[in-house]
Amino acid sequence: MNKAEVLNLLNQVKKSKISPQEALSLIKAPHIEDLGYAKIDYHRQLRQGVCEIIFGENKTYQQLKNIISSMVSKNFKNIIITRISLQTAKFLKFFFDLTYSPQARIAIVAKTKKTKKVGNIVIASGGTSDIPICEEAAITAETLGNKVYRLYDVGVAGIHRLLSNQKILQNARVIIAVAGMEGALPSVIGGIVDCPIIAVPTSIGYGANFNGLSALLCMLNSCSSGISVVNIDNGFGAGYIANRINKMESIK
Amino acid sequence: MNKAEVLNLLNQVKKSKISPQEALSLIKAPHIEDLGYAKIDYHRQLRQGVCEIIFGENKTYQQLKNIISSMVSKNFKNIIITRISLQTAKFLKFFFDLTYSPQARIAIVAKTKKTKKVGNIVIASGGTSDIPICEEAAITAETLGNKVYRLYDVGVAGIHRLLSNQKILQNARVIIAVAGMEGALPSVIGGIVDCPIIAVPTSIGYGANFNGLSALLCMLNSCSSGISVVNIDNGFGAGYIANRINKMESIK
Amino acid sequence: MNKAEVLNLLNQVKKSKISPQEALSLIKAPHIEDLGYAKIDYHRQLRQGVCEIIFGENKTYQQLKNIISSMVSKNFKNIIITRISLQTAKFLKFFFDLTYSPQARIAIVAKTKKTKKVGNIVIASGGTSDIPICEEAAITAETLGNKVYRLYDVGVAGIHRLLSNQKILQNARVIIAVAGMEGALPSVIGGIVDCPIIAVPTSIGYGANFNGLSALLCMLNSCSSGISVVNIDNGFGAGYIANRINKMESIK
Amino acid sequence: MNKAEVLNLLNQVKKSKISPQEALSLIKAPHIEDLGYAKIDYHRQLRQGVCEIIFGENKTYQQLKNIISSMVSKNFKNIIITRISLQTAKFLKFFFDLTYSPQARIAIVAKTKKTKKVGNIVIASGGTSDIPICEEAAITAETLGNKVYRLYDVGVAGIHRLLSNQKILQNARVIIAVAGMEGALPSVIGGIVDCPIIAVPTSIGYGANFNGLSALLCMLNSCSSGISVVNIDNGFGAGYIANRINKMESIK
Amino acid sequence: MNKAEVLNLLNQVKKSKISPQEALSLIKAPHIEDLGYAKIDYHRQLRQGVCEIIFGENKTYQQLKNIISSMVSKNFKNIIITRISLQTAKFLKFFFDLTYSPQARIAIVAKTKKTKKVGNIVIASGGTSDIPICEEAAITAETLGNKVYRLYDVGVAGIHRLLSNQKILQNARVIIAVAGMEGALPSVIGGIVDCPIIAVPTSIGYGANFNGLSALLCMLNSCSSGISVVNIDNGFGAGYIANRINKMESIK
Amino acid sequence: MNKAEVLNLLNQVKKSKISPQEALSLIKAPHIEDLGYAKIDYHRQLRQGVCEIIFGENKTYQQLKNIISSMVSKNFKNIIITRISLQTAKFLKFFFDLTYSPQARIAIVAKTKKTKKVGNIVIASGGTSDIPICEEAAITAETLGNKVYRLYDVGVAGIHRLLSNQKILQNARVIIAVAGMEGALPSVIGGIVDCPIIAVPTSIGYGANFNGLSALLCMLNSCSSGISVVNIDNGFGAGYIANRINKMESIK
Amino acid sequence: MNKAEVLNLLNQVKKSKISPQEALSLIKAPHIEDLGYAKIDYHRQLRQGVCEIIFGENKTYQQLKNIISSMVSKNFKNIIITRISLQTAKFLKFFFDLTYSPQARIAIVAKTKKTKKVGNIVIASGGTSDIPICEEAAITAETLGNKVYRLYDVGVAGIHRLLSNQKILQNARVIIAVAGMEGALPSVIGGIVDCPIIAVPTSIGYGANFNGLSALLCMLNSCSSGISVVNIDNGFGAGYIANRINKMESIK
Amino acid sequence: MNKAEVLNLLNQVKKSKISPQEALSLIKAPHIEDLGYAKIDYHRQLRQGVCEIIFGENKTYQQLKNIISSMVSKNFKNIIITRISLQTAKFLKFFFDLTYSPQARIAIVAKTKKTKKVGNIVIASGGTSDIPICEEAAITAETLGNKVYRLYDVGVAGIHRLLSNQKILQNARVIIAVAGMEGALPSVIGGIVDCPIIAVPTSIGYGANFNGLSALLCMLNSCSSGISVVNIDNGFGAGYIANRINKMESIK
Repeated sequence: MNKAEVLNLLNQVKKSKISPQEALSLIKAPHIEDLGYAKIDYHRQLRQGVCEIIFGENKTYQQLKNIISSMVSKNFKNIIITRISLQTAKFLKFFFDLTYSPQARIAIVAKTKKTKKVGNIVIASGGTSDIPICEEAAITAETLGNKVYRLYDVGVAGIHRLLSNQKILQNARVIIAVAGMEGALPSVIGGIVDCPIIAVPTSIGYGANFNGLSALLCMLNSCSSGISVVNIDNGFGAGYIANRINKMESIK
Repeated sequence: MNKAEVLNLLNQVKKSKISPQEALSLIKAPHIEDLGYAKIDYHRQLRQGVCEIIFGENKTYQQLKNIISSMVSKNFKNIIITRISLQTAKFLKFFFDLTYSPQARIAIVAKTKKTKKVGNIVIASGGTSDIPICEEAAITAETLGNKVYRLYDVGVAGIHRLLSNQKILQNARVIIAVAGMEGALPSVIGGIVDCPIIAVPTSIGYGANFNGLSALLCMLNSCSSGISVVNIDNGFGAGYIANRINKMESIK
Repeated sequence: MNKAEVLNLLNQVKKSKISPQEALSLIKAPHIEDLGYAKIDYHRQLRQGVCEIIFGENKTYQQLKNIISSMVSKNFKNIIITRISLQTAKFLKFFFDLTYSPQARIAIVAKTKKTKKVGNIVIASGGTSDIPICEEAAITAETLGNKVYRLYDVGVAGIHRLLSNQKILQNARVIIAVAGMEGALPSVIGGIVDCPIIAVPTSIGYGANFNGLSALLCMLNSCSSGISVVNIDNGFGAGYIANRINKMESIK
Repeated sequence: MNKAEVLNLLNQVKKSKISPQEALSLIKAPHIEDLGYAKIDYHRQLRQGVCEIIFGENKTYQQLKNIISSMVSKNFKNIIITRISLQTAKFLKFFFDLTYSPQARIAIVAKTKKTKKVGNIVIASGGTSDIPICEEAAITAETLGNKVYRLYDVGVAGIHRLLSNQKILQNARVIIAVAGMEGALPSVIGGIVDCPIIAVPTSIGYGANFNGLSALLCMLNSCSSGISVVNIDNGFGAGYIANRINKMESIK
Repeated sequence: MNKAEVLNLLNQVKKSKISPQEALSLIKAPHIEDLGYAKIDYHRQLRQGVCEIIFGENKTYQQLKNIISSMVSKNFKNIIITRISLQTAKFLKFFFDLTYSPQARIAIVAKTKKTKKVGNIVIASGGTSDIPICEEAAITAETLGNKVYRLYDVGVAGIHRLLSNQKILQNARVIIAVAGMEGALPSVIGGIVDCPIIAVPTSIGYGANFNGLSALLCMLNSCSSGISVVNIDNGFGAGYIANRINKMESIK
Repeated sequence: MNKAEVLNLLNQVKKSKISPQEALSLIKAPHIEDLGYAKIDYHRQLRQGVCEIIFGENKTYQQLKNIISSMVSKNFKNIIITRISLQTAKFLKFFFDLTYSPQARIAIVAKTKKTKKVGNIVIASGGTSDIPICEEAAITAETLGNKVYRLYDVGVAGIHRLLSNQKILQNARVIIAVAGMEGALPSVIGGIVDCPIIAVPTSIGYGANFNGLSALLCMLNSCSSGISVVNIDNGFGAGYIANRINKMESIK
Repeated sequence: MNKAEVLNLLNQVKKSKISPQEALSLIKAPHIEDLGYAKIDYHRQLRQGVCEIIFGENKTYQQLKNIISSMVSKNFKNIIITRISLQTAKFLKFFFDLTYSPQARIAIVAKTKKTKKVGNIVIASGGTSDIPICEEAAITAETLGNKVYRLYDVGVAGIHRLLSNQKILQNARVIIAVAGMEGALPSVIGGIVDCPIIAVPTSIGYGANFNGLSALLCMLNSCSSGISVVNIDNGFGAGYIANRINKMESIK
Repeated sequence: MNKAEVLNLLNQVKKSKISPQEALSLIKAPHIEDLGYAKIDYHRQLRQGVCEIIFGENKTYQQLKNIISSMVSKNFKNIIITRISLQTAKFLKFFFDLTYSPQARIAIVAKTKKTKKVGNIVIASGGTSDIPICEEAAITAETLGNKVYRLYDVGVAGIHRLLSNQKILQNARVIIAVAGMEGALPSVIGGIVDCPIIAVPTSIGYGANFNGLSALLCMLNSCSSGISVVNIDNGFGAGYIANRINKMESIK
């Protein structure tokens, strides 16, 4: 760890973005721990303010257990594991202090008790069926320390449901707009607010939906400005980006 | 022409759907005239209430001229030729009484002076760039005897433009909703009205629009009910269907 | 509920589109009921003449139960739930007066005993395998009060089966043409009738069918006029639109 | 040339599939002539009964001239060059005895005066716009010595035009069915005849036609049996295959 | 049944294409039998020389049983049912004299004992994994009365396996070339033979094979002439077409 | 304009986001001006802090001239017109005070002399060929009042070019990462910085690039967190979103 | 076996590429053994230095058993069977001396005890989830006699993990770069090394990954030179090619 | 330039891969020269043995001129510029010593007079139309110092043309197999040789070729082992990789 990095670290401690214990672990830790099948990057928290997130899909029980063990032993907190089944979560719970949302298929290991939540991220969904993806975004954002407001089932087919919640939308610092099928929700929201919007297409639908392609294309082609898009069903990614934007500070 | 067909024809004369002159021509005409490269179906008007429409694209000057000549010689009126260039229209104007819209690229030969226009078809467009397709639909519908209300540039990115015209939309008997890019307009209209909606995706856009694919998929996946879709840029088709629906009579 | 809406409501009572009991519930009900994961729009019946339809796929047992409960408690009748499994239907039957079609995977809650069925919607299928989608359309249309004629297995490969039923087709007020594989049925029907046709591509087929894409593209590119298309396997949507068209009244 | 090949050759002379002059050239010719940029296969006529066909697209003037020169110098007759522009044809006409169809974009060099034409290939087209592809097939088949009957503009949107020509179709030995847009023509023909059908999708159409993809998929998914398909706009290929089938002899 | 049809029928009896018993049944049978969910076309045998083939996929046990019963009661023989599972076949075997190939997933009901097999259809496969599709083609062709030669696992990656069987290929009247993955087999065969080739792409492969798309596109773009293509995995279709071509008679 | 909107407006005047003159115009202006083919939304500036942007493609000279005239007459400044040709720009320059970038194909009408530029947006490009899209983003962002740093030709094929500019990247408040071909640039940047990244795929490339599809898919599937994506070649959209994020203020 | 082939064989014996026992079997063996459903090519080892590899997917137990039996009886060693399940492997283990990797789903029959491993192939993976494909490549390459270095989880999102292993990469003779999701790994490696790189896209990912399409397109469009690509998930193919390149000898 | 890099450089001088003059320039040159719109990487030659190649498409005259000027001023030789038009080449020829191939659209600046060409790369093409891509590969490989053998028009439709050149193929150290349409050439070559094969799909073809997609998919799915693939029409890439493989040295 070079001088600039240590300085950076100390600044993060000062701003309470990182606890002194975590800082200590970081200073002592090797840059990267090599487990053979995985190389854990312990400096990511330094570089990016958030420790490594674990993409759970396609990893074996043993791989997940070992990766988490290493991170826990370095004193990391709020370790996020995405896209794991209930069964996998149950297995991991034997070994770790783990919270799991079966709906969002996301687990948090070593969750800190009382994270202060700040700012205002509104997560809007087109329908009830999109909620699992919304929750993945919501839990990610909350775990990273953001206030989240859930505004579900406000799809464009019943525009009044959306319009009667305009205030909530206009008070947001960032909006995550989640929709399947035709994916028109972000476009309509885009016309009423002036904050950044993260659009999340979902694979909800059938037929010419082609597993979310229709919603994805719709969102990429939005004629509303101020919208950017993440992968189909990528609730985690949206929550992560919203965290970064929500925590922006004023230009000095 | 069998007995039932003649009866049908006479009923159409009675209801003024067809003039006595046209009826005469129909009765005398052979069922189909074979020009070699084209077989003109003179009984279509009997079967479907509208004479054969000519798809102008990919036809040569000479083919178009001959087909129209045959129809004119049988005393047909309001012959519609779609998708022809200004240049082709100028060529045909030498020979026929022809009206042309360069924007919609549609021509009418032997237009009747004062067709009574009935009912109420509203044509709404997402943006200014979609207007050529709208006009193809509008001119088709007007030529077939329908009242048309044009409501252009009311796309979802500025939802207030649409909502301030709710009355107009709710008074329609049929709505043609035309949009490119994300194609969300029909979905939003679908939530406010209770009449049939014909959605027309346009190829307006760029990049992941893929020449209208994004709007097409969006419209097919609409979560609003009451929407059916025609081919990309098919303004003519939408005008034709709207004509049929607009002229529906009450269940006896 | 403002003055115009109440007036509208009373008109619907007068025309028997809505019962006095339902009208009462509507007047008393809040515009939208917020269950958190769902926002039920009680005024949809006012705006669109049909109460909210429930898309059953991807909703949990509990979500479905609660949504239906809310609607039943507001005295709604003929509540349609689409795309639910036999197992889900069995669960819901414990709590509600529910009719289920395992073939069409559609359920009706609080079905009114003797709905008068009017008009004439013909549902034609290309093959035997398309029948589940046809039945989804048929049950939707019947529940909404339409007469339905089923004309199954009349695909274009044996054109005589279709032609020997021309009368039935020509008497229809609306036709729903359902086909998988090459999806040519609506095109052929389009050449013989003069009423609006709703084309429904199905995912029946294999190989280069690509889950219904071949039928969808075929129908969108039909050279017959008067055809509009809904999503692959969207029997419900076709039934819903056919209802709107079938019930059109004459131009005043 | 080994013994079997010479025997084969003599048999072809006997059956008049090949003239004695051509046979002589073949016996004397090297198997393959190498021009560097092209390797002309002089034994193809022996193996396949037809000399090498030249795909004109993407070849330079000089390459075409040299390839044809070589073939002419070996005394080949009826050399077919497909997909060349009028301009290229004019250039080649300086050097060779060449017949060109601008519609079909096909040229024949060293055409024999009076080829006897046998059998019966019917070429049916959906519309007028498909005729250039039909003509590519027709000229290919005629050049190879087949009788061709042209039945154009009999698309399924006006099924009566097709049905009134049933006799012509039922007398065919092979049918080439050419159609763009929804490409349903071969399916309907497939239900009325009992001979092999070659389906040719064309790129005629717009929007969701995707340059012939809709017609191609439609034809591949036909529920009529007895249909096989060639590439989009491949009139030549269809004519070539039809030639082979038309000339089949009875099982001994 | 009109005069011409009866004449046709009698000619078929004379040529032994149809037995007197079958002819009797046909004469007595109504043109089409309507089971509600299926309309069986009893004149198909007259029009096309082969009775209706049953596409088994997506049909229920009861539908299959009833359709077959009707056909058996009309004395039809060699009734082909494609794409049915072992389980379905076992169910049907309770009621009918049924032969089943689990590999090809094809069943024959009321198989005639000693059909004379004529001509020569060669079925070549690229690999061992393509054999189920080959067998569907082979059993179809054999049931329709054709001699079939099986030449399996001769894919282009080991060109010597193919070349050492050139004689077999050159003696064929028709070749069915079946291949998955890159689907190059028909192209190579196309260069060595002079008979019609039916190419069948299979869904064998993985990754960028996209369920047979790679083989399908490869075959449609073959630079060998004389090849036409059927749907992915459509062994039945290939066998059916090969039957028609194999049985062609000499031009009179 | 209701009370809240006026308050909002006055706050924007106070924060110098809007000049007193502009505020005056807004207060006096009607909400929406209807030109028939376009409905200009004058309150967008109130709702979203930026006046309506004009998408120039597919609009006629006259439409553009009239829309701009209306906006200029309402005293709007810094009116952005995207995607117009040099020729169109020259036509418009006759009537308006217009600045044009031929590389970015973007025009600014009524540009204010000295806009204070704030914050720090870094625009990185993969290659030299991506610069036109970068410039569209850069000019948009600068016109909206942001400082922009251009870091061009730092694609991943020469990772050292990127790494030697790490400081510049780490000092950014927002990064716009623009790349064609494989589109890997945002992923690599995503691993080194902790600010939001807007990824812009470009259509630069050939073959299996499919007009930008490869870069688009690559960016949507990035395994770096913190990246969201806009449409292919949508430099304007990226600049617009970056403006919103760059101007975020601290959570109060 | 002709003279040249025998000479070739003896040279391979001399270079120890083949054992005297294997050579004996080859000399005695027929060129091709025909099992009906498979034609085993015993000369492949002569022509290509490696005996036939068995693609296990879609082959039955019995087919696999018989093919392996034939090869074992001819004294072949190190027979590779790819893509077989644990269950199949267990079945085969009853009959053969078989080693199986459940992760890579690859089996080796008649493995030679101590194959000398030469050269240096580095296999790098983007993530932990890509390891099964890496192992397929690794085991293939090792079985063919190559030294393999595994460098896993060095994806571009944490570029430092890759850069800290530059030495290992620069010492490779060939690199196999395996990545899913955005597939950017080969591009970055391509900028640091000067040896051939084989890129392997994997189907790891979700949503707009489309089963590996995103990684495949990314790799095909790499702006780094020196990269060629194999099919999605084709670890075997990559290992096989790497073997050929690794064993290249100097130009004489 | 650090110690290791200098050592590396000196080794390359020793092996004559680089001239002393070039080495001198490299040592003196800055790592990267920043032209604003381009960052030229002068150490690429050190790292990869070949100086930066210029992708000419989408670069302006001025950009190309300046980039080449900078490289020439550093004494680089054999600078390759791909994909430039004849017109651009003519412009650049005013300023530089430039050789241009209009067929391959490739230019070489500062070509060294007598580069020794080593090894043996065979470039095979399916047809005459593929030659421009072949030449791009050939000129690239020759400029980098490789012997190239051109074997054109040996596509699989006439397999004898290929087989009669087996010796040439079997003597190659690397083969570049170039083909459009069905792209089967590499598969067949793959079965006869034991050296690495680089497959290059071309966009030659029409219809379902989809601009080279058919050939690309075919090559990726080849069942021959030993084949890897580059982008559609990427002759340059193939030549570059072949250079690396051809110059491999024996394992020490």
